[in-house]
Amino acid sequence: MEGFKFEEEEFLACCGSTKFAKEMAKASPFSSLHDAVTAARDIWFNNVDVTGWLQAFSAHPQIGNPPSSSSHSTFAQWSKGEQSTALATATSSSLQELSQWNTKYREKFGFIFLICASGKSTDEILAELKKRYPNRPIVEFEIAAKEEMKVTELRLEKLFSTKENVPSTGS
Amino acid sequence: MEGFKFEEEEFLACCGSTKFAKEMAKASPFSSLHDAVTAARDIWFNNVDVTGWLQAFSAHPQIGNPPSSSSHSTFAQWSKGEQSTALATATSSSLQELSQWNTKYREKFGFIFLICASGKSTDEILAELKKRYPNRPIVEFEIAAKEEMKVTELRLEKLFSTKENVPSTGS
Repeated sequence: MEGFKFEEEEFLACCGSTKFAKEMAKASPFSSLHDAVTAARDIWFNNVDVTGWLQAFSAHPQIGNPPSSSSHSTFAQWSKGEQSTALATATSSSLQELSQWNTKYREKFGFIFLICASGKSTDEILAELKKRYPNRPIVEFEIAAKEEMKVTELRLEKLFSTKENVPSTGS
Repeated sequence: MEGFKFEEEEFLACCGSTKFAKEMAKASPFSSLHDAVTAARDIWFNNVDVTGWLQAFSAHPQIGNPPSSSSHSTFAQWSKGEQSTALATATSSSLQELSQWNTKYREKFGFIFLICASGKSTDEILAELKKRYPNRPIVEFEIAAKEEMKVTELRLEKLFSTKENVPSTGS
């Protein structure tokens, strides 16, 4: 079958669950980005277990604390890009408040605050964190998983865009 | 305050989450079993995080495989009592089928199949396992947490019944 073929490692840069990456690699090649996103949603919500969700969450840097410039992994570089609006709109006091709320959140829920940050200002992210904080742990767990999928979809789009520039050798 | 006072370790025999046991000990003494159950539900569903839920699940023996008679902990003894109907109604073929489905379940969900087994036959437990198996992991996770709370409530009742036999020294 012709199509877009990727390695397990490339899917791991989209979502840090090893089960997700393995199953995506097994399901590829995909005929289009749309097909890959459909498969990703199915694998993430129906096949990856709760431990796999926690594993994927733990791969993210804390919001407002992007990876250092010495981190050259694709995952780290993408995290940095996704937080660029937040960082451009941050003041030292808003970053400090965000850091305090991140700590509070992690103490309550046991995992990092996850949000699809692309295009969001620091104030918007902080408002969302405060709004989600009172949630029950199981409710917040599922919201975080949906945010993880939003991030994953954006990253799959980036992954596909790198392949589209490469002329196909198959035809 | 007069009332029913228990230690952290006693609550740990009711539910294997250390956070649950700590918070219950902090919330005691309780004026009645009803008050203790209300506190337990609030702590379990609102304060214990998802990692705490997984910790509590992992304290249980596999259903159909009660702890050996050499296990003398209160937790193990209670587990055995809760499975007595299941064991009395079991045949070697139903136990084998249950064991196969337990393995299948654990492979899909990453935790043990949890059910409040009191009064349930092996066939009823097996039918419930098969019915729950197709669930999405997050759905099944919440069902398991509700079953854990049912078990915890029965055990709190046992815990209170041991205290009721002791004459109060406070009056």
